[in-house]
Amino acid sequence: MARIAVVAGDGIGPEVVAQARRVLDAVLPGVQATEYDLGAARWHRTGEVLPDSVLAELAGHDAILLGAVGDPTVPPGVLERGLLLKLRFAFDQYVNLRPSRLWPGVAGPLGNVKPGEVDLVVVREGTEGLYAGAGGSLHRDTPAEVATEESLNTRHGVERVIRDAFARAGRRERRKVTLVHKTNVLTHAGSLWARAFDAVAAEHPDVATEYQHVDAAAMFLVTQPQRYDVVVTDNLFGDILTDIAAAVTGGIGLAASGCINPEGAYPSMFEPVHGSAPDIAGQGVADPVAAVLSVALLLEQLGHAEAATRVNAAVAAELAGRTPGVALRTAEVGDRLVAHAVA
Amino acid sequence: MARIAVVAGDGIGPEVVAQARRVLDAVLPGVQATEYDLGAARWHRTGEVLPDSVLAELAGHDAILLGAVGDPTVPPGVLERGLLLKLRFAFDQYVNLRPSRLWPGVAGPLGNVKPGEVDLVVVREGTEGLYAGAGGSLHRDTPAEVATEESLNTRHGVERVIRDAFARAGRRERRKVTLVHKTNVLTHAGSLWARAFDAVAAEHPDVATEYQHVDAAAMFLVTQPQRYDVVVTDNLFGDILTDIAAAVTGGIGLAASGCINPEGAYPSMFEPVHGSAPDIAGQGVADPVAAVLSVALLLEQLGHAEAATRVNAAVAAELAGRTPGVALRTAEVGDRLVAHAVA
Ligand SMILES: CC(C)[C@H](C(=O)O)[C@@H](O)C(=O)O
Ligand SMILES: CC(C)[C@H](C(=O)O)[C@@H](O)C(=O)O
Repeated sequence: MARIAVVAGDGIGPEVVAQARRVLDAVLPGVQATEYDLGAARWHRTGEVLPDSVLAELAGHDAILLGAVGDPTVPPGVLERGLLLKLRFAFDQYVNLRPSRLWPGVAGPLGNVKPGEVDLVVVREGTEGLYAGAGGSLHRDTPAEVATEESLNTRHGVERVIRDAFARAGRRERRKVTLVHKTNVLTHAGSLWARAFDAVAAEHPDVATEYQHVDAAAMFLVTQPQRYDVVVTDNLFGDILTDIAAAVTGGIGLAASGCINPEGAYPSMFEPVHGSAPDIAGQGVADPVAAVLSVALLLEQLGHAEAATRVNAAVAAELAGRTPGVALRTAEVGDRLVAHAVA
Repeated sequence: MARIAVVAGDGIGPEVVAQARRVLDAVLPGVQATEYDLGAARWHRTGEVLPDSVLAELAGHDAILLGAVGDPTVPPGVLERGLLLKLRFAFDQYVNLRPSRLWPGVAGPLGNVKPGEVDLVVVREGTEGLYAGAGGSLHRDTPAEVATEESLNTRHGVERVIRDAFARAGRRERRKVTLVHKTNVLTHAGSLWARAFDAVAAEHPDVATEYQHVDAAAMFLVTQPQRYDVVVTDNLFGDILTDIAAAVTGGIGLAASGCINPEGAYPSMFEPVHGSAPDIAGQGVADPVAAVLSVALLLEQLGHAEAATRVNAAVAAELAGRTPGVALRTAEVGDRLVAHAVA
């Protein structure tokens, strides 16, 4: 039986995770779930972010389901560096997987894009680049202050995530991978990415390839999101591009993500892209769909493809049945999703 | 009389610059323009990108008007690092100014945004960050390869561009500045930006302020571009965000930019954001509006506010008079713009 660690977190995290767990239990009965209290609340209470003992316990699970952590009173970086990124790096979650679909029933912001036309997945590198934490400052708080941030990129790290992107593309209908970088300015890292990409592409003659600069890709995600199938890119570019992809497909309320260690040497982590949304927390109005779609990614990663398909179908039915402008209740959405999932 | 260096460049560059110069001559007769042959064509012919002697000559002008440089056969980085970025850095053009307006008559891609509602300007830092060229690689072309790119940020460089942003906001109606960074991950540079921002903000109690992470800003530029007035951000974030802003306001065919040295110690440079577009070059179908709007920025920078206003009004009239779907001819657009500008 799958052993799942659940980090419900702060704000709307617990609300959406509750529904996600109901759906998970419905499609895969018998999951062993253990709850871990991590996030802003614990930090306020105890000053702890992620004790080593908890990290070790998390490592013993098959996957982690995370709701959302944070609130505006925690200084920037504390939970990001200390918890979220710590987990991504400690568990070598080098594939940060972020699918975006414009689901039938969802009104996206783009006038010329119809539901069903957008179905892309960004394979964002998760353990390198500017997220490595390699930076510092000198002469702080003086006019001479200098601050640096270093992007670290290895052939090892770049090639493995590109391989994952090609493998995914090979299993999809359009079989296309777009590399996004900024090779014309970031010439060293860009060249490494481009050469690794070309080498892996040569092993996949059945997969079509293209390259775009990150600024152009940001633009085309708005003007022609239909053109993308699999996008592979570095950590920071992936952070930005996936929020654009989410925006053009109905918002981060629907965006799921997986921080994946494909080899399964460590647990992978699944979480909605949205944050803890303190402004609407506790009201029972948060949309649990992103958390539920994250469960589908979790199921797929753990080899339960059929259960994942049922979750996705439940979400499709839910979204197709929504009436624009009608407020939703978190628990009612959960009721409907469970009903669809077991139908 | 203003002395302008003109770098028409490659592809559609010369076509749009020709119209931009007609408009410039119409609103400011007597400009002394000197043409410089730089770009892909010169590089192919001579191997030269920007000879020191040319750099020295350019320095003697009041401003530079650039069309577009590059073609797909030039290796990435050659013209970018050797010409465009070389000029930005050599001439200390630390304000990279990129206004975006959804002009009446222009059909943007967003269903819920009406012409006239978007009027923002991104003040992108132009001489620091990841564009500093501080990077390298080791063990190239081996499995052990590592490549780095370093973002360099100084209090000097950050504060001066933030000051410029606040000064611009103070002259606009909404008087609001949004700082965009990624303080939760890029904690060193982010902290420097945030502290410099707060310090300058304290001197401008009449200007409203907000902070957004770059991923959130990328999303809000798609879902609510109306919310922005002045956005100040670093070099790379500005590169990406301005292409999104262009995309939601009708595309880079309409996007102007200025690389500005506000003190006038060196010439500022004005150029359309679009590239040389080899696919449509030579056909007389390129839209010169972005180049013409760049002339308006040039005029403003050189203190010819009234002439700048006439150019902007001419563009407004041109765009309002366009019939969607009707192909345009570069020279005819120029004819109409000149006629509007002198009317
Ligand atoms: C919270 C933050 C560290 C994180 C990131 O930048 O990766 C978030 O924006 C995301 O996309 O998951
Ligand atoms: C061509 C390239 C160097 C440049 C940049 O990245 O600044 C371009 O994208 C721009 O935005 O002006």
